[in-house]
Amino acid sequence: MRISELSAVSGVPLPTLKFYLREGLLAPGDARAVNLAEYGDDHLRRLRLIRALTDVGHLRLRDVRAVVAAIDDEQMPLHELLGVAQYALVSDDVDGSHPAADASDPTTADVDRLLAKLRWDVNPAAPGRRSLTKAVAALRELGWEVSVDDLIGYGLAVDHLAAEEVASVPERGSRSLIVEHMVVGTVMFEAILVALRRLAHEHHSAHRFGKRPT
Amino acid sequence: MRISELSAVSGVPLPTLKFYLREGLLAPGDARAVNLAEYGDDHLRRLRLIRALTDVGHLRLRDVRAVVAAIDDEQMPLHELLGVAQYALVSDDVDGSHPAADASDPTTADVDRLLAKLRWDVNPAAPGRRSLTKAVAALRELGWEVSVDDLIGYGLAVDHLAAEEVASVPERGSRSLIVEHMVVGTVMFEAILVALRRLAHEHHSAHRFGKRPT
Repeated sequence: MRISELSAVSGVPLPTLKFYLREGLLAPGDARAVNLAEYGDDHLRRLRLIRALTDVGHLRLRDVRAVVAAIDDEQMPLHELLGVAQYALVSDDVDGSHPAADASDPTTADVDRLLAKLRWDVNPAAPGRRSLTKAVAALRELGWEVSVDDLIGYGLAVDHLAAEEVASVPERGSRSLIVEHMVVGTVMFEAILVALRRLAHEHHSAHRFGKRPT
Repeated sequence: MRISELSAVSGVPLPTLKFYLREGLLAPGDARAVNLAEYGDDHLRRLRLIRALTDVGHLRLRDVRAVVAAIDDEQMPLHELLGVAQYALVSDDVDGSHPAADASDPTTADVDRLLAKLRWDVNPAAPGRRSLTKAVAALRELGWEVSVDDLIGYGLAVDHLAAEEVASVPERGSRSLIVEHMVVGTVMFEAILVALRRLAHEHHSAHRFGKRPT
């Protein structure tokens, strides 16, 4: 199909499509003539991925670009690819605006203890460690007492879900399909989990504090 | 203390403090003389709240403003206040760039069924409903089969955590303390839950796909 049809079918405005092409998020169509290129199902699928990551996942464009580049890089071994894609999804926590974690910091030590108790094998440089440490440290600065045991319940709640999610990644298929599955699953089910938690808060608040929010 | 001391103690740069004052996020200090105001522990506490919401919660300034305004509005009944604060936290999903949910849409109907199965009593206009519907619809557009039963596990995982979180909101104390507790808890434990899920993914991916990401 032509780019105008791609725009109509996907619902993505033409200027946005051209922007994605310029930014390398979307591969060029097959050139049929000067100013005439042919687009297909791969383009449509990639567009749905980009829109899902931006509209639902609220990823910034530079993070979408990193994820798409990882999917398209055919040279990278699969386990590295999964790492790159996953780490690209949390780049806002590793933007250099925060000092590196200090191993002697009590919150960092507590996070280490928590991960050991959960028996999770994760890289010392995993961005999730720093996000977690930052959140716990911020709570403590605000006067909250947060113990390792308080956090175990959160870990166990996601452990089971994450195990199922990883198990659902297709056994076979192209590398890009496997990585896309992992990225989409990570971002979309995170949105689902967060939305459900907010709805559960509303439900339980209504029970405790009377009328539900209007 | 003077504003320069407030900056030193809080670690928030002076220009940022002045910006917060102009924007009404931070109450003015007690005026002692022209160009001399006195700041106290309330200011320090509010600053920690603002930084936690922006740095850890990644809230945009306009959402921080809505939350802070809700906390400071002494006229609002508590249950409404909780609703306003909670809804302010998800304003990026209600920014008007997406059409309203269509009740005849199958995904909307599935979300209704899911909430009914979970026995959660939530407002039909709750922003979480729309976030949830958007995420499930995006997955389906990408070819994923997502059933109501697939989602129940996510609901149950957060139901228990949310019930405990709501129960931990202090029984007594000032209104602002109660709302602050709810807002901080919502934002910080969301960051904790998301970070832990990413770490659990890394752990389970390493087991399934060999080497862990480096």
